Amino acid sequence: MSENHRFSAEELHAVYRAIRERRDVRSGFLPEPLQESTLLRLLEAAHCAPSVGLMQPARFIVIRAEATRIAVHRVFQRANEAASAIYDEQRRQLYGSLKLQGLLEAPQHLCVVCDERSSQGHGLGKQSMPRMPAYSVACAVQNLWIAGRAEGVGVGWVSILDAEELKNLLRIPREVELVAYLAIGYVDQFAERPDLERDGWETRRELSSVLRMEYFDQPYTPAPTPVEPGQ
Amino acid sequence: MSENHRFSAEELHAVYRAIRERRDVRSGFLPEPLQESTLLRLLEAAHCAPSVGLMQPARFIVIRAEATRIAVHRVFQRANEAASAIYDEQRRQLYGSLKLQGLLEAPQHLCVVCDERSSQGHGLGKQSMPRMPAYSVACAVQNLWIAGRAEGVGVGWVSILDAEELKNLLRIPREVELVAYLAIGYVDQFAERPDLERDGWETRRELSSVLRMEYFDQPYTPAPTPVEPGQ
Repeated sequence: MSENHRFSAEELHAVYRAIRERRDVRSGFLPEPLQESTLLRLLEAAHCAPSVGLMQPARFIVIRAEATRIAVHRVFQRANEAASAIYDEQRRQLYGSLKLQGLLEAPQHLCVVCDERSSQGHGLGKQSMPRMPAYSVACAVQNLWIAGRAEGVGVGWVSILDAEELKNLLRIPREVELVAYLAIGYVDQFAERPDLERDGWETRRELSSVLRMEYFDQPYTPAPTPVEPGQ
Repeated sequence: MSENHRFSAEELHAVYRAIRERRDVRSGFLPEPLQESTLLRLLEAAHCAPSVGLMQPARFIVIRAEATRIAVHRVFQRANEAASAIYDEQRRQLYGSLKLQGLLEAPQHLCVVCDERSSQGHGLGKQSMPRMPAYSVACAVQNLWIAGRAEGVGVGWVSILDAEELKNLLRIPREVELVAYLAIGYVDQFAERPDLERDGWETRRELSSVLRMEYFDQPYTPAPTPVEPGQ
């Protein structure tokens, strides 16, 4: 294997650092808006995402207007009230204590949608798996999220929103699918671990518990390679 | 803004390099299997992905058995034949000339599914947007894809597959959703641009064509910040 296409140890470390230290940011957004150049680098990173058939269905609405941010926060509040109702008393109290979004603090929002109306891609790869375009859009969000971590920009994905209300507010056509609504802004720190873990909502699983081998019902076992050269 | 949480210029460059140079790899897989340590780093990167409510619904089936890889390739062949039938003569010829998967060459496959059956996450964040768990899983795939690029490991997402056939083959329960089927292996180069562009199937859009401002129907205009300090 030639080596010139591989990353240096330092580069590799940086990539893993961004992946590992990325957080879902719900507080601590600084009031200064993103520099235009920073925002465009993040959007370019998102636009680099894979897409089925190269159809590039992701569209990005940058929202800066305070009135809109307040209106979206109201959409959140309504959905959040409905959501909290499913829990028993104890967990509802815990739920109520969680900070689940930073929509008012973040100086900009980004609404990411999946628009399949163009013929770009000519339908390649989505006939048998019709959800592929939306997955492509989710990959774009993850690109932006990782780049944001490296830039010192916090990103929080807010999913406690009624999609129809939000689409009406942002004049998104009926056939276009809402995938992600993000609050974005500079932060001066990233939490060491997820807020939901810190706050006692949930703990993270061990990697081994999500791995399987050959079949879904078979536990993972390492490959039978006796000796591994160090690297 | 304090600076210690920001990446150095070199780290930032490495992150953007991985995002920009990631490719959907369909050919050029080398026959040597992944080292166990490399594979586990990639899986750990995937497992670091965000997930709604910290529910971590992604499960990863590592497939090494040749018989299974051949069987999956047959699933692909059937779906591919059906898929090509929708095109007119000229585009069908082009479609037939494309190399759309490297399932037989790649020494391992990874099937990534979304399992919502556990109560992990306690339903937080998915009541109003029920597709969030699957999007979380797509984000995990993108993490692995980016880490793979940095490791010199090619990843190809094969979506021309019948999900039910594949689930039967891998003994995946009915309620568990197939999100991604990946061919994975070392490569000795990454293409400069997407195969589908090189082969004349589709061209990539300019970033500006996917950006909107405040509303879906409004074109993007830069923020009215007069002066930008260099960085």
